[in-house]
Amino acid sequence: MRISEGVEWAAHCAVVLAQLPDGLALNAGVLAEFHGVPKPYLAKSLQALSRAGIVASSQGRNGGYSLARPAGEVTLLDIVLAVDGGQAAFRCTEIRQRAPHPAPRKCFRSSCAIAAGMWRAEQAWRDELATVRLDALASGVAEIVPDDVMAQNAGWLAARIGRA
Amino acid sequence: MRISEGVEWAAHCAVVLAQLPDGLALNAGVLAEFHGVPKPYLAKSLQALSRAGIVASSQGRNGGYSLARPAGEVTLLDIVLAVDGGQAAFRCTEIRQRAPHPAPRKCFRSSCAIAAGMWRAEQAWRDELATVRLDALASGVAEIVPDDVMAQNAGWLAARIGRA
Repeated sequence: MRISEGVEWAAHCAVVLAQLPDGLALNAGVLAEFHGVPKPYLAKSLQALSRAGIVASSQGRNGGYSLARPAGEVTLLDIVLAVDGGQAAFRCTEIRQRAPHPAPRKCFRSSCAIAAGMWRAEQAWRDELATVRLDALASGVAEIVPDDVMAQNAGWLAARIGRA
Repeated sequence: MRISEGVEWAAHCAVVLAQLPDGLALNAGVLAEFHGVPKPYLAKSLQALSRAGIVASSQGRNGGYSLARPAGEVTLLDIVLAVDGGQAAFRCTEIRQRAPHPAPRKCFRSSCAIAAGMWRAEQAWRDELATVRLDALASGVAEIVPDDVMAQNAGWLAARIGRA
């Protein structure tokens, strides 16, 4: 199992967007420079967040990405599913039905117990990710980073709003 | 996130081995034929189970794989970790420290909250997989498959023990 780097980058971008004053937007180039990550790959993650309705994108000189809904209504699960997709990690191919002497099909009406266990585990993973809200992540950063450093980074971003 | 097919195959093989009478072993070729899966790839999964101490392998005419410990002491988590490895699905690259104006290092003594949330979710996934025991999976098969079909498959396997 592997969660892509794009998820980590998207989550950090979402935290920065959650801290942005209302009405402002940041483009992919600025977000990439802020996080020290490659812009082309980050752009794909941001587009995935946009398709999932987590961020909105605006065009024009001051255009870019902003949160599409309140930070309290975005969870880490939303971000993971947006970037890495919502497919189940475990795919059951029903190999229990391939035995040399297969049981009658009616025996297989309920899920294979191996698959059922895997899916319960995935649900537990999703349930836990759904408890991590973006507003809490953003306020957590503000708690550990000193105010002057927060202000310096906000100023760095403000100076780049409207640049390509 | 994706769990490999090798995990599904290994889990089904482990269930068959849990149903095998004491003292008998099945080789990779027989297990592959029983499940209708390619032997070379299945062999890798079986070797992974062996390295993890879940199955033991014996040489010789009647050699093959058998469970290395009681089925009640093997869980789906053991099998997943054996085949797909025990690395965390989420790798934190500490990009929070890359901001244009980084906070002092002492601010980053505790884990990034994004990473911490991801790892709590992985732990929830592991905890759930650890509740699924191989003995329960094996008795579950015996409950849904009619006795005559169980006996036919056991006979099919018995006829192949000792063959290459």
